[in-house]
Amino acid sequence: MWVVVCYDVNTETREGRRRLRRVAQACKNYGQRVQKSVFECQVNEMKFEDLRRKLLREINKEQDNLRFYRLTEPRENHVETHGLTRTIFFDDEPLIV
Amino acid sequence: MWVVVCYDVNTETREGRRRLRRVAQACKNYGQRVQKSVFECQVNEMKFEDLRRKLLREINKEQDNLRFYRLTEPRENHVETHGLTRTIFFDDEPLIV
Repeated sequence: MWVVVCYDVNTETREGRRRLRRVAQACKNYGQRVQKSVFECQVNEMKFEDLRRKLLREINKEQDNLRFYRLTEPRENHVETHGLTRTIFFDDEPLIV
Repeated sequence: MWVVVCYDVNTETREGRRRLRRVAQACKNYGQRVQKSVFECQVNEMKFEDLRRKLLREINKEQDNLRFYRLTEPRENHVETHGLTRTIFFDDEPLIV
């Protein structure tokens, strides 16, 4: 199944910036970054449980927001993208959309 | 139907910051802001066409990315949120999630 992960991490503190990096790192192991704070992950239920557990461990529930959107297959019928499709603008991280 | 709107606007320039405000403003007329750059909109096809057209007019396709995710009903089965649920942290804009 496809899951869209959207996160809003409060980066006003050093700790927050650290959380942001760790949340992104955790997502990278499960899917494709498509925007700064949005990943698309093709996972089974077990992997999704894994990802959720890891992300819940990283965020601060009083300051950050994490959303999962389960997409119905086929993915192409439910996802539409416009604009920038290939660029590198996150540190040295390639953003491939 | 429910549509999730995610946008990544390049705000390195003044023009980019202006685009960001205008994109958020356009989304506000169609749905609920749930994260800095994520809106959830309950719209019919006609309204969705409207929203898409307005947003495509605002973004710069060489610099920004815009994604629409169509959610299958019932929404509750496809959306999961964790963390911060009610706060005010965008200028004077209430963020109600």
